[in-house]
Amino acid sequence: MPPDHDPILAPVPNALPPVERVARMPVGFAAVGTTAGIKASGRPDFALVVATDGPIPAAAVFTPNRFAAAPVRLSRANLQATGGSATTCGYAAAVIATSGSANAATGPEGDADQAAIGRAVADAIGTTPDHVLHLSTGVIGTRLPVDKVAATIKRVTDEGLEYTDLALGQAAVSLRTTDSTTKMASVTAKLPTPDGGTVAVAVTGIAKGVGMIHPRMATMLSIVLTDATASPALLRTLLRGAAAVTWDQLSVDGDTSTNDTVFALASGGAGAISADEDDRVRAALGAAIEAVARDLARQQARDGEGATALITCQVTGAADDADARAVARAVISSSLVKAAVHGKDANWGRIAGAAGNALVAESAVLEAAGLSPGEAAARASQPAAVDPARMRIAIAGHLAYDGATGGPTGIDKAAARDAMDADEVLIRVDLGLGNGTGEAFGCPLTEAYVKENSEYTT
Amino acid sequence: MPPDHDPILAPVPNALPPVERVARMPVGFAAVGTTAGIKASGRPDFALVVATDGPIPAAAVFTPNRFAAAPVRLSRANLQATGGSATTCGYAAAVIATSGSANAATGPEGDADQAAIGRAVADAIGTTPDHVLHLSTGVIGTRLPVDKVAATIKRVTDEGLEYTDLALGQAAVSLRTTDSTTKMASVTAKLPTPDGGTVAVAVTGIAKGVGMIHPRMATMLSIVLTDATASPALLRTLLRGAAAVTWDQLSVDGDTSTNDTVFALASGGAGAISADEDDRVRAALGAAIEAVARDLARQQARDGEGATALITCQVTGAADDADARAVARAVISSSLVKAAVHGKDANWGRIAGAAGNALVAESAVLEAAGLSPGEAAARASQPAAVDPARMRIAIAGHLAYDGATGGPTGIDKAAARDAMDADEVLIRVDLGLGNGTGEAFGCPLTEAYVKENSEYTT
Repeated sequence: MPPDHDPILAPVPNALPPVERVARMPVGFAAVGTTAGIKASGRPDFALVVATDGPIPAAAVFTPNRFAAAPVRLSRANLQATGGSATTCGYAAAVIATSGSANAATGPEGDADQAAIGRAVADAIGTTPDHVLHLSTGVIGTRLPVDKVAATIKRVTDEGLEYTDLALGQAAVSLRTTDSTTKMASVTAKLPTPDGGTVAVAVTGIAKGVGMIHPRMATMLSIVLTDATASPALLRTLLRGAAAVTWDQLSVDGDTSTNDTVFALASGGAGAISADEDDRVRAALGAAIEAVARDLARQQARDGEGATALITCQVTGAADDADARAVARAVISSSLVKAAVHGKDANWGRIAGAAGNALVAESAVLEAAGLSPGEAAARASQPAAVDPARMRIAIAGHLAYDGATGGPTGIDKAAARDAMDADEVLIRVDLGLGNGTGEAFGCPLTEAYVKENSEYTT
Repeated sequence: MPPDHDPILAPVPNALPPVERVARMPVGFAAVGTTAGIKASGRPDFALVVATDGPIPAAAVFTPNRFAAAPVRLSRANLQATGGSATTCGYAAAVIATSGSANAATGPEGDADQAAIGRAVADAIGTTPDHVLHLSTGVIGTRLPVDKVAATIKRVTDEGLEYTDLALGQAAVSLRTTDSTTKMASVTAKLPTPDGGTVAVAVTGIAKGVGMIHPRMATMLSIVLTDATASPALLRTLLRGAAAVTWDQLSVDGDTSTNDTVFALASGGAGAISADEDDRVRAALGAAIEAVARDLARQQARDGEGATALITCQVTGAADDADARAVARAVISSSLVKAAVHGKDANWGRIAGAAGNALVAESAVLEAAGLSPGEAAARASQPAAVDPARMRIAIAGHLAYDGATGGPTGIDKAAARDAMDADEVLIRVDLGLGNGTGEAFGCPLTEAYVKENSEYTT
């Protein structure tokens, strides 16, 4: 085929529904974003999202960090209390999010602080504390100013939360720490109703990103709201499956946070058929959640600390999807690849080296992505199949390495450099072994990252 | 106990023999280091080490990278040919090392180049090509100038290799790429002789470090020579065991090279009792190899690209040694911890976060460190046991976090900052769970690292 039609020179097409970068409020929720005074800067640092008709199905993916913060531990306990068994799905009536202090590594006092905040929310909206989910982000090891947060809870609930897109957008603003952008993504899906018609269903995500981000079964803070109908267990399955191919494929700096959490809440307010009762509804809702998660992950990578671009690595021709995702993740996680992209250097040797070193994910991620427990256990943390004699690498539309024809192609580095001077740098790897595909999202490693993180708390 | 006697405020004592940072040539070897013209700079780029009485026991640890370079693949094949089965031990009469081109991702032509170099060495010293071991380092994807290397082999062997410490030091110089120091370490051990006396045995290592260094069953280029006596299989066991607690605990930037190799060769020239025949000799030789490997690993971390200090993390009180090593490795691998040390910021929260995210090593490393195959399979890539309520963290002699007393200690950040302004920054973590210990070596993440690696090939 002519070189300009070689698939490796272009992005891999995907079948996900289109995403708008706005916060479209689904039916059945109200929200507020404001300033509670946690941040010394006076910037917004408080968000509250409420399910207006009381507790609804909720699901979560949490950081696996053993140093999980107080809000993570309390949210797990609350989901277990309301869901009956699992710590990752149950029922919730509110999500309270604070920014400025992570309430991590704060000991029993931190747990007590978070519980007091939960009681304040429950009292204010008329639910029980175990129906409140918690997010916090910021510096590790500092206490939350409970009085300020409680006073703000009273103030905003006295004033009344709003049902508007703007209110949800303001909640997104309040999640930010060092984010330079507000991260929002919405999908509208047409789903069938019980009476034979169709209805527009919204799936909207808000998120924060920037640092301490690495794909270990988690993400940074995100809230996904929908007015579709689904049980807690199914919502969890769809959320976890979406995370496995989106947030679990996102790395900013190789560090997995103590606070990483994504919540999904489904109000059922649109009146569509339940995803538990119809396979097409289930598939459509799953695709919408995945599309929102993917777009938020891309926004988070693009806004990584010190980042000047989004790095997307798409892998095709792998022995299977798990291998493809492993190779994509290894490439975007490599400090040397990240530094090379910063320098607009089409350094394919570092991409090859990173790919050759890829390890398949942990078993929990593999199960979430669809493998059976037995398959997942057998594959977990194993090297991905990579054959240098079959591999091909293209950078920003320029073929750099072709194993079948002896390796280096003599890439035009100046032309590649021009192509890499873009907001998104696409690295395409074809392994020539099978039909597995996968992608991952990262960002360049820059002097600004180092500067920002060597001056963070001093 | 008084705070100044709290063990967490000081380094963990170790029982390894003392190391001198010189190259002490063992009996039975000759060497040369010179310029072959591979590097455009004209700096030394060629080293040859020869076993003067012909093939002797040899062992290796190789990179697990699937993109293993031509010298790695040829050395594996040669050890298999001379050793009879394993690809990691056999017999060798020479090690040829070139610097400036990695001969990685160079396809069949790269394999042919490396084979031609092996034949040139074999012809020049009177052995067979399968008794030649190969090391190369430098840019990925560029060919080796075989003619220049072959001409240099002829020149240096015509002139005659030397048996001196200086010649071995010059070989060490030739291994360097962007290294700012020449890395050498020697231990002298008194070992028993068959006639009831004792003899001084030398164990000497030379190495290069700096970048693309990460602990996956490998190291950067190193050659360990000894005039002790050991079989290929035992030499491999001792070398692999030493690597598991030293080089496998070393990270500069999270990338594992395509060329990482360490070779050990034992000439038997000192006339000591064989390590295969006497447990005390075996223990003494193992300790000497570990001491050399540990010191070289520390030199490599200290000289990591852009590094301004050595970061040592020592972990005590772990459930077992594998967990302790996992936590130590997670701490020194964290970009956020590395950036904080660069900023002399006693940011214990990032240490806690990294520790909470630690995964035990792969099964091959665990087996090398002494676990049974069954134990290793069960533990591989599992989260390390970490309990925030029992953990303690000290930075440069200052206690920062004590889980048992509520967490943050209110560390004096100014005093800690002064203490971190040193050539080595010690991070001590006690997990309060058991008797497991481990350590790892890394370096700060600096603007200079980013600058160096965003400008490497362009």
